[in-house]
Amino acid sequence: MSTSTSTLDSLAIGIDIGGTGTKFGIVDRLGNVLFSSEISTKKHIEIETFIADLQQNLVPLIEKAGGIGRIKGIGVGAPNGNYYTGTVEYAPNLPWKGILPLAKLVQDEFKLPVVLTNDANAAALGEMMYGAAKGMKDFIMITLGTGVGSGIVANGKLIYGHDGFAGELGHTTIIPDGRYHPGTGKKGSLESYASATGVTTTALELLANSKRESILRKIPKEKIDSKKVYEAAIAGDALAQEIFEFTGKILGMALANFIMFSSPEAIILFGGLTKAGDLILSPTKKHMEENLIQVFQNKVKILVSHLNESDAAILGASALVWDM
Amino acid sequence: MSTSTSTLDSLAIGIDIGGTGTKFGIVDRLGNVLFSSEISTKKHIEIETFIADLQQNLVPLIEKAGGIGRIKGIGVGAPNGNYYTGTVEYAPNLPWKGILPLAKLVQDEFKLPVVLTNDANAAALGEMMYGAAKGMKDFIMITLGTGVGSGIVANGKLIYGHDGFAGELGHTTIIPDGRYHPGTGKKGSLESYASATGVTTTALELLANSKRESILRKIPKEKIDSKKVYEAAIAGDALAQEIFEFTGKILGMALANFIMFSSPEAIILFGGLTKAGDLILSPTKKHMEENLIQVFQNKVKILVSHLNESDAAILGASALVWDM
Repeated sequence: MSTSTSTLDSLAIGIDIGGTGTKFGIVDRLGNVLFSSEISTKKHIEIETFIADLQQNLVPLIEKAGGIGRIKGIGVGAPNGNYYTGTVEYAPNLPWKGILPLAKLVQDEFKLPVVLTNDANAAALGEMMYGAAKGMKDFIMITLGTGVGSGIVANGKLIYGHDGFAGELGHTTIIPDGRYHPGTGKKGSLESYASATGVTTTALELLANSKRESILRKIPKEKIDSKKVYEAAIAGDALAQEIFEFTGKILGMALANFIMFSSPEAIILFGGLTKAGDLILSPTKKHMEENLIQVFQNKVKILVSHLNESDAAILGASALVWDM
Repeated sequence: MSTSTSTLDSLAIGIDIGGTGTKFGIVDRLGNVLFSSEISTKKHIEIETFIADLQQNLVPLIEKAGGIGRIKGIGVGAPNGNYYTGTVEYAPNLPWKGILPLAKLVQDEFKLPVVLTNDANAAALGEMMYGAAKGMKDFIMITLGTGVGSGIVANGKLIYGHDGFAGELGHTTIIPDGRYHPGTGKKGSLESYASATGVTTTALELLANSKRESILRKIPKEKIDSKKVYEAAIAGDALAQEIFEFTGKILGMALANFIMFSSPEAIILFGGLTKAGDLILSPTKKHMEENLIQVFQNKVKILVSHLNESDAAILGASALVWDM
């Protein structure tokens, strides 16, 4: 086992904590994910058992990579993660409530320097270093997964804001008095529509409020999810296609608002929903342009991240280490 | 007449072009507006007559201030002003359409270096240098005048965006399919509600759609404006108070969205509508907090600019010169 600490062959650990699962891996400076694995997030009611599970599954990877001596540090991406304090605060999609000293817990466990930020901020760093935003100084990263996350880069730097929490675009209100979000108690947020969860809700609403035929009626309600809706839409199901049309309309309206805020060169989309391709991208683009005032029209690219999905989250989190 | 060019006593010209009028003045480094005046913007159908009018009214001030030799440069704030190109592009609230090389026109006229940006960006610089945002690194400036403008500062720098047009928050959609904006052709923008024009429209709508008693009914429709609504509200008129309540509700929802974008330390409000004081600030604050997810609640100050209104626009524009 090597214990060399030369910078050239030093490695970084990236940990991405999502509402459902937590991905982690060991990454070199060129962005190769050498070893990676995943554990469940949501099965851990207590943060302590989560940290223990992480330790148990990460240590073997560190050993395989040549031991702790080769690791420069750990980057953690987590919902509502605070770059300044290393805490995760009131994250609606995580099982742990209140303010958690996550960076400190990880640091105490592994005895390595830890940097933490919003999971989508980490993803944005990853895109800027290795992905679709290479060379860009102004872009917005939107992650469309279980929830909707975002990372905003302006003047070549991530916007952390006054308190470290900037970039919670998933929680901005798009439809006043719209759909209720059980995690936040707010109504009409982007996340309540343009996430995998939102697509499922839209499907259930459309099925309940009409008698229209659809392949989706053959599936038990509790088994309907965004993947099933996608498969139905691809198979030509009109109702399923309408679900993506509607989702894209909401997303496009939201993107227009974001563009009028920071005027980015591109919006980088990432996550499960982007797999629906033009089913969601076409209406998104259309409604984005329709809601922009003239000065912003036909200028801003919508790009889908081309990083391998399971690697991207880890890469983003690990990018925090090289940025330390 | 002095022609000294020592930096210590050098002066800057600030020009603020609004939809109705254009203010300009000569400012020293400490932020004293030494001489100032104003011309109409909207009476000039042609940009050429506007520049001629500006020249005629500004030259006497330059003479009074000791001549052109003392002037370091000219800062111009204008709607849709582009910092990178010095052009004003498709400004919905100005009489001139298309793309105008405004910085060049001013430079050719006065033979001085000219820097141009969005009027609200200029106002934000002024607040950061001389006003309510002194010492802040993350804040959002919102101007509530004929229209709604904005300037966003993050990491201590104005966000210009990829193309120089960032910070058009007045044109973000707050009510999908809401009130039509004749200048942009878009529906439901913040500006169509939370501007002086928006308040007038709300008043006319409320009067037309109800038979409720109001002092405002004694005023001919075409004479109702935000000032009349303010006077009625102060006099205890319930309908007039409701107009500000409604305006504050929309503004508060919008501010919550902006906070979830860049997480500023404060939002600085400026312009005519702020004179309504708590009539508009109380509902704004209330609805802002209601629409924020927990992590942002009770953290962000709403401050009203304490700069003298006629000076502030000039100060902001002149601040561009010291920033050159």
